[in-house]
Amino acid sequence: MRWSESFITADWGTTNRRAYLLDAGGSCVAEFEDDKGIMSVPKGGFGEAVAEIRGRLGDHPLLLAGMVGSNRGWVEAPYVPCPAGLQDLATALVWPEQGRTAIVPGVSFVDPDEADVMRGEEVQLLGAFAAGIVPADSLVCHPGTHNKWARLRGGRIERFRTVMTGEIFNLLRENSILSDLLSGPAEPGRAFEHGVRRGLADECLPAELFKIRARVLLGEARAEDAASFGSGLLIGTDVRAGLREGDDDEVVVMGRPELTQLYAEALRIAGRKAREVDGEQAFLAGALGIVRSIG
Amino acid sequence: MRWSESFITADWGTTNRRAYLLDAGGSCVAEFEDDKGIMSVPKGGFGEAVAEIRGRLGDHPLLLAGMVGSNRGWVEAPYVPCPAGLQDLATALVWPEQGRTAIVPGVSFVDPDEADVMRGEEVQLLGAFAAGIVPADSLVCHPGTHNKWARLRGGRIERFRTVMTGEIFNLLRENSILSDLLSGPAEPGRAFEHGVRRGLADECLPAELFKIRARVLLGEARAEDAASFGSGLLIGTDVRAGLREGDDDEVVVMGRPELTQLYAEALRIAGRKAREVDGEQAFLAGALGIVRSIG
Repeated sequence: MRWSESFITADWGTTNRRAYLLDAGGSCVAEFEDDKGIMSVPKGGFGEAVAEIRGRLGDHPLLLAGMVGSNRGWVEAPYVPCPAGLQDLATALVWPEQGRTAIVPGVSFVDPDEADVMRGEEVQLLGAFAAGIVPADSLVCHPGTHNKWARLRGGRIERFRTVMTGEIFNLLRENSILSDLLSGPAEPGRAFEHGVRRGLADECLPAELFKIRARVLLGEARAEDAASFGSGLLIGTDVRAGLREGDDDEVVVMGRPELTQLYAEALRIAGRKAREVDGEQAFLAGALGIVRSIG
Repeated sequence: MRWSESFITADWGTTNRRAYLLDAGGSCVAEFEDDKGIMSVPKGGFGEAVAEIRGRLGDHPLLLAGMVGSNRGWVEAPYVPCPAGLQDLATALVWPEQGRTAIVPGVSFVDPDEADVMRGEEVQLLGAFAAGIVPADSLVCHPGTHNKWARLRGGRIERFRTVMTGEIFNLLRENSILSDLLSGPAEPGRAFEHGVRRGLADECLPAELFKIRARVLLGEARAEDAASFGSGLLIGTDVRAGLREGDDDEVVVMGRPELTQLYAEALRIAGRKAREVDGEQAFLAGALGIVRSIG
């Protein structure tokens, strides 16, 4: 198979997958997204799930990234330790089908106090640098189920920190005593800003969360503001931790626009500039960079 | 009905209820516990659920406390604002069946930055004071689904703060990416202490939580230590917030022994003395105090 002609790349996460067909010039000419995340693939079922991708986008070389390379995925691709650049990822590719299908490794970071892992975001972070969208030295925030704050240095991921903000918000919205209150839309505005400011302050998150309910019960806040306030509270807490990674004047916020919008607003409330970058474009740039370096 | 002869009291929460029959001398002579919390009672079904209590413990006067007095319960008993003493609760009882069945109100606290509510714990807190188990001026920690840090002053609840530690731990254990790791027992020991110290430090909880998984994946921690570490992390975060309520040398920890044990250990790690008080005995003392003041 000739990777230089065209190839498919997929961002295959826990709960869904997005696959793209890129032509020889690196343009995306076809794509699809579905809910066949790795948790929905039965044991031994990855061969079939991969064949399905080719069935939809054609019999091309395939570059997979994300949780498909985890110990719950198809074939485990060991983490590449920081500092990690796009070339480091290309060198450490794991090949379930030699020459035909590759899995991008995740990235790990360990120091005496920290231990952290990512899978999938590394392609976006390094792709955005390769495409000239983010500077070689920058602080990048990548919101999602597990938000990543990554320090790029010389175009490589030097260190990073995960904050499980998205997952905690979902847990609270789906199964907690706050479920009813958090079911509405989370939007920028006064309630969101109020939440962000509480999160940026040195407050105890599990205490602030309970007050969402108490304030409404006591008539001190409106129920319809609760989701935006709660989102702001969690994102403000997250931004407070992330900004310890550096005093950068500008922070890059990369990912899905509905999330980057909220983080960018929280960063502005925290006194920083925020530049939003579309995660999908960064992913495609990263996949292209890896494929070009394997020839 | 003569309250002075004997009465039943029940602590009726969201997911279960505990009912006790007290004789004229105030001794508990019969009791039961079941999972008929208020969420399991159908609309209009409280009359029957109450009759069932009398069916099991006899046709006596009945004093109910806890979420049965909330807007999701039988009859709403409006919150008594702080400062609140046992006599304030007795004065504000709500009577679904006049002279025969009373509901104890919850307690609220509001100041410019805070808004908080409790239902059920107030009977224990004030009962322990009435019984001479805790000093008139003290800081009390009451762990549970929603831990309460309460300041008693002159034998009344002057202010308090809720930290939803128990609920967050349960959400993480049941539905999160940490579920497998947190399913084991949470016990005092080195891993618990390590977690407590991280929680007491000024760290970002949603980042520390993710590291539970990352450390195990990277071989920096043992999977079998994760539940104790995670419990310590959440309780340490909680204690850090609670100790802002005062520099008391000794803190009273009241509630179920399996929980007070962990909080007492965390308080000792934080350099405070902890005195454990059994919540059930405190509840009975509080119920008796209220009943004696209505005569």
